[in-house]
Amino acid sequence: MPMFADRLIASVRELGPLCVGLDPHPDKLPAIFGVPSIGTLALWSEAVISHAAGRVAAVKPQSAFYEYWGPPGMVVLERTCKAARKAGLEVILDAKRGDIGSTAEAYAMALIGPEAAYPSDCLTVNPYMGMDTLEPFIARAQITGSGIAVLTRTSNPGSADFQTLKADGQPVYAHVAKALASPIRRLMGESGWSGCMLVAGATGPEEARALRALAPQALFLVPGYGSQGAGAKEAVAGFVPGPNGLEGGLVNASRSVTFASGAVHAQNAMDWDLAIIEAIETAQWDLMRACATGRTQ
Amino acid sequence: MPMFADRLIASVRELGPLCVGLDPHPDKLPAIFGVPSIGTLALWSEAVISHAAGRVAAVKPQSAFYEYWGPPGMVVLERTCKAARKAGLEVILDAKRGDIGSTAEAYAMALIGPEAAYPSDCLTVNPYMGMDTLEPFIARAQITGSGIAVLTRTSNPGSADFQTLKADGQPVYAHVAKALASPIRRLMGESGWSGCMLVAGATGPEEARALRALAPQALFLVPGYGSQGAGAKEAVAGFVPGPNGLEGGLVNASRSVTFASGAVHAQNAMDWDLAIIEAIETAQWDLMRACATGRTQ
Repeated sequence: MPMFADRLIASVRELGPLCVGLDPHPDKLPAIFGVPSIGTLALWSEAVISHAAGRVAAVKPQSAFYEYWGPPGMVVLERTCKAARKAGLEVILDAKRGDIGSTAEAYAMALIGPEAAYPSDCLTVNPYMGMDTLEPFIARAQITGSGIAVLTRTSNPGSADFQTLKADGQPVYAHVAKALASPIRRLMGESGWSGCMLVAGATGPEEARALRALAPQALFLVPGYGSQGAGAKEAVAGFVPGPNGLEGGLVNASRSVTFASGAVHAQNAMDWDLAIIEAIETAQWDLMRACATGRTQ
Repeated sequence: MPMFADRLIASVRELGPLCVGLDPHPDKLPAIFGVPSIGTLALWSEAVISHAAGRVAAVKPQSAFYEYWGPPGMVVLERTCKAARKAGLEVILDAKRGDIGSTAEAYAMALIGPEAAYPSDCLTVNPYMGMDTLEPFIARAQITGSGIAVLTRTSNPGSADFQTLKADGQPVYAHVAKALASPIRRLMGESGWSGCMLVAGATGPEEARALRALAPQALFLVPGYGSQGAGAKEAVAGFVPGPNGLEGGLVNASRSVTFASGAVHAQNAMDWDLAIIEAIETAQWDLMRACATGRTQ
């Protein structure tokens, strides 16, 4: 089995950089799925995955919206991860874990790789506690041919509070990016891309380019495209020329795709199906166009 | 119902500052509980809680070691939280969550307060993404009379990687502590202590005193005592004089108490019971002595 970075970039080259985020906020699940419940959660997750399959390289289930429902929600998360993998999608499990040594090891066992309780291809992790706390995640990713996505520069308004504090002339997020040099090497694929991804928000294209200079081979996971306000051009600002135009990671869209107006207000299942498919194809096309245009600049 | 800070400090004044961490590492569960399994996990957790009750103010279940077992592990976590609260213990749920707005809200609903899927009195959270990402946790703690414990200066070796980077003459963790001024006010109890706790590692007593100066009313959650190497005196370095000696938070001990040599090698249930009780009483006494001595200095 190829490494995560190679699987991902091959799929991105074929389908485009869009990652569909599964953020099943209980108040936002469309009425046609019924009253919010574990059943609704399961049905909605399955349906989104069935339309994402073959149209995008990856999906990103947000753990919080499954944890919300207690243990039965975790059964749905487990099934969602399995169904997505079975459908040929790369699963970026968005749980943002981080803890000391043996605790991080337990999280890694639970959340990274095909044999995990919640099977994934890549786990989002938080670096605040330091590089020793990332080590068990990196090691587990290495063993299982998976990846990690390290919060570096996020796209939320408050992300500047601590991430952009300047130390020795460089923002904290640049220190994080530089500290990832060794894990980036360790999770390097044959494609020349590494499965040690950087979460690099689409709200700061100049910062994305600066991060690209600091970590030329790290795949980026770019949040903030779509409902968080950034356009396709900003979203791919950290990408570089590849065989089919700009490439260099995934651009995530959650609500702007899965809660697109046509989907939320759908009157029946077929309308919902059509709205989701249209939202996915539109976002994918928007991003692919930005990648193609970028090539000729 | 009194606020979290007031409940906690009243209990600490009566029993002492020890918090018993539940870190049921699958490889460390004593043989007398049987082969590691969901059942072992449940039995061990219940047993530790039954001995902690009446002897300490709080327990801190580590979510990772329950997540490790998949959804059935989450049932055990749910029951463990409930049993601890029923036994009169404050539950510090150690899950170190952190995410953007509505996602953090889902985590907060699941993990904070008596009505949560995993009922707790206080949740550990990670500040890296910024203050807007802590807001839903603070709001939920306020509504439910609960607390949060914000990773500020942790006790692991790599914690210096990013937490001690200096920006504007102050380390990043000091910026975090200062940014918590408003949540500290919002979660203030009648005791004058706030349920917006700072995680302030026992491996850096001078830093603990500096943090105390920055956040005089925040209760501290102090990791690093016991198996992570710090002594009682270092552990209470951030405490201040109170009615019964030094006070100002909880000192956590996990493995040094629950995996004390006598407990790990116990030949039968009664030996294990005695070893756990002795380990708890010894650690509590050690800390209370440090608090009493500190008073006369």
